[in-house]
Amino acid sequence: MSDVTGPGTPQEREGPLGSAPAAGGRGLTRALIEDVVAGADAEDVERVRALMRTLHPADAADLLELVGSDRRPVLIRAIRDGIDGETLIYLDSEVLEEVVDQLDPADVARAVAALDADDATALIDELDQAERREILDLLPAPERAAVEEGLAFVENSAGRLMQRDLVSIPVYWTVGHVIDYLREAQSLPDEFYEIFVVDPRHRPIGKIPLYRAMRSQRPVKVSEIMDRNVRAVDVGADREDVAFLFSQYDLLSAAVVDGSGRLVGMITVDDVVDVIQEEAEEDIMRLGGVIADDLHAAPWVTARRRSSWLFVNLITALVASAVIGFFDATIEQVVALAILMPIVASMGGNTGTQALTVTVRALAQRQVGPANVGRVVLKEVGVGALNGIGFAVLMGAIAGFWFQDPLLGIVMAAAIVINLVTAGLAGAAVPLVLHRVGVDPAIAASVFLTAITDVVGFFAFLGLGTWLLL
Amino acid sequence: MSDVTGPGTPQEREGPLGSAPAAGGRGLTRALIEDVVAGADAEDVERVRALMRTLHPADAADLLELVGSDRRPVLIRAIRDGIDGETLIYLDSEVLEEVVDQLDPADVARAVAALDADDATALIDELDQAERREILDLLPAPERAAVEEGLAFVENSAGRLMQRDLVSIPVYWTVGHVIDYLREAQSLPDEFYEIFVVDPRHRPIGKIPLYRAMRSQRPVKVSEIMDRNVRAVDVGADREDVAFLFSQYDLLSAAVVDGSGRLVGMITVDDVVDVIQEEAEEDIMRLGGVIADDLHAAPWVTARRRSSWLFVNLITALVASAVIGFFDATIEQVVALAILMPIVASMGGNTGTQALTVTVRALAQRQVGPANVGRVVLKEVGVGALNGIGFAVLMGAIAGFWFQDPLLGIVMAAAIVINLVTAGLAGAAVPLVLHRVGVDPAIAASVFLTAITDVVGFFAFLGLGTWLLL
Repeated sequence: MSDVTGPGTPQEREGPLGSAPAAGGRGLTRALIEDVVAGADAEDVERVRALMRTLHPADAADLLELVGSDRRPVLIRAIRDGIDGETLIYLDSEVLEEVVDQLDPADVARAVAALDADDATALIDELDQAERREILDLLPAPERAAVEEGLAFVENSAGRLMQRDLVSIPVYWTVGHVIDYLREAQSLPDEFYEIFVVDPRHRPIGKIPLYRAMRSQRPVKVSEIMDRNVRAVDVGADREDVAFLFSQYDLLSAAVVDGSGRLVGMITVDDVVDVIQEEAEEDIMRLGGVIADDLHAAPWVTARRRSSWLFVNLITALVASAVIGFFDATIEQVVALAILMPIVASMGGNTGTQALTVTVRALAQRQVGPANVGRVVLKEVGVGALNGIGFAVLMGAIAGFWFQDPLLGIVMAAAIVINLVTAGLAGAAVPLVLHRVGVDPAIAASVFLTAITDVVGFFAFLGLGTWLLL
Repeated sequence: MSDVTGPGTPQEREGPLGSAPAAGGRGLTRALIEDVVAGADAEDVERVRALMRTLHPADAADLLELVGSDRRPVLIRAIRDGIDGETLIYLDSEVLEEVVDQLDPADVARAVAALDADDATALIDELDQAERREILDLLPAPERAAVEEGLAFVENSAGRLMQRDLVSIPVYWTVGHVIDYLREAQSLPDEFYEIFVVDPRHRPIGKIPLYRAMRSQRPVKVSEIMDRNVRAVDVGADREDVAFLFSQYDLLSAAVVDGSGRLVGMITVDDVVDVIQEEAEEDIMRLGGVIADDLHAAPWVTARRRSSWLFVNLITALVASAVIGFFDATIEQVVALAILMPIVASMGGNTGTQALTVTVRALAQRQVGPANVGRVVLKEVGVGALNGIGFAVLMGAIAGFWFQDPLLGIVMAAAIVINLVTAGLAGAAVPLVLHRVGVDPAIAASVFLTAITDVVGFFAFLGLGTWLLL
């Protein structure tokens, strides 16, 4: 990716990061954002265009996101002819759709054609079916072929993530050969950090980090300085597994091989940084009941998307209410039970969420396997029991004194112990079971969990109350 | 970091990633884990030692984590003499403490001394006060000085993250000079991806990616091929800001400068990958009510840590109960209100959590600034209103039919609209306000949020019920 900024750009004038307080927005200064907004309000296309030109594509994309949909059209008009493909790839998918809608498809195709094949594929993949076809048809034949080849790989696979341009050399070369080749070859990738060594059947058998090649004398043989542990990735491997490999072994790039072991592409760390962020993001969002980051979507789009989760929650809440309804006669006689019952449910819900959070992340980071799965569940049950007993004593005393009824205190204490032990067990077991049957635990676990802790909490508390207090 | 594995190690025999289903554990095969566990059970130190030696340090660390505290001592005994510092840095802090306790401090010091200064500093920093002093005193003087210098930087600062070894060259050199220097210099960092160009006062004025240096002819001047946009980082900059810079601009390494702008160190992308993961992890844990990942802590330690969050939750639950208690006479007459009230609170809590999750992440990724903060809050209010109306109609009808009371349905509908609008507002505003006053929104926001949606939900539902149904 090219650096479009030079000395004197807004970023540079700020001095090193950390020497001044961070400005509003992301990598953008507050003054610049205000300048652009003022230009957009005045429909001063020239001024906006000049300001946008000083920005790194990632910052230009942020600016397009930040200004909101009312001022966005002016910005898009300003960059319309000469739109930078790099800027498009940094855009959130909601905003990208809006931007592409307002651009001439021929301009978009030109911008896409200038991108590396992996970036072009990722960008095209974000578009809806009709736009995708339209842009693809406008691409020059070689670029179209490259993108279509990329799209043929399964979503979220290494094949989608990789770029096909890489540097590969035969094992019998010397460092001198390598240097001469790098200086003379025309079609090398824009950026690369390692050189792959291949056998005659083009299977990767080693790799050489550039710093090692540069520090070696020309007569040194490639075979002497290469790492033989290539850690190759299959084109079909899941991108989460690829991200794990990079973070586990601190990789800079990885060779991608096809079914017969031939080197077909490479994945670089900058792409993996994005994957790591997106995967963690996905877990956070799903645990919070949001299907995907919807910051930039319109309110009605967001409301519709989020309502599916709320609907599922409504069903579980109705089940919990039905449990309460079962004890309506009890509540009529002992209103204190209705007053206190949300505490039992809430403590259970929170205990379960704690266990759930730790277990979901342990699964995502592969810290749970056959070797320790039993220990993980047992521990959460133990934690639930320990906190259950502690809070049972505390809350039992509070309830007893509040309503001047020691027996009510005992009912409260017993229900809390029961619900917190259940919560610990369910919080750990539900995500493990979901993971086992191939469902993403982050998205589904908390529904089950809340249903369990609500039902068990209400049933234990009201059931014990009916038995002991009537 | 060195690659300790060669051909024929367990990883290699597996073939490329993705060609076989992932085994249990992390980068480890199930067979290997079982071998080690069998060896540990038989107290067969030689066998365990041989198996551990085949592992990458990151995998060795995982294995130490996976086996659990009962078998861990045998593993530690096996690696005691010749413990690898690299393995220690990959360990979770709970497990690290256990391992260091069982090792001879002199062995630990020897392992630490062999690490890069930044890794050694990070490792020492994880130890408790007494151990830290003991190990520091056992380090050779230059290594001790380097670690103490590192520890002098503020926690979570760029200074802590950086390594002092780097490659810097004067701007008047040619590519030929650079190559000769790299081949001959003795004290270069183990790994580096970019060369920093400095002025006579040692301030960074440019950088050259290695691939560009390698592709240039010897007579080419450094000044012709360097990127002038250095994106330097101040030693005091927060590591979150550093991580943002790397992911925003796809950096491989960044220059770190002191107060007078002199180049004092560099940060590389592999360290930043860890920071990105840790920061996302922290948000997930905190949103889930867990202070820090406690997978490897003992049950009583975990229970104690998590109880503080449960205690805060108990307080808010008691406040909500007090609100219900205020309406005890109403509930006694209309038990249906007690049966239905958890639904109002739960729908509000979930709507609020959705808004909260998106806002907390937008703050973490700097997608919210003065330019759009008003829009973000307004949107969440709008989403709350839209879903509020939708679910009010649905749930109002259900409540009306269930209890054969249209007025109860209207009370339910009105309470849901009120609580979901409140939830949207609070879900967005609470984290924004907390962020503004310098509190981490991930850790504190959900307590406030639940308190608000519970209190408003119960108050609206029971208040309207008292007014309309009695």
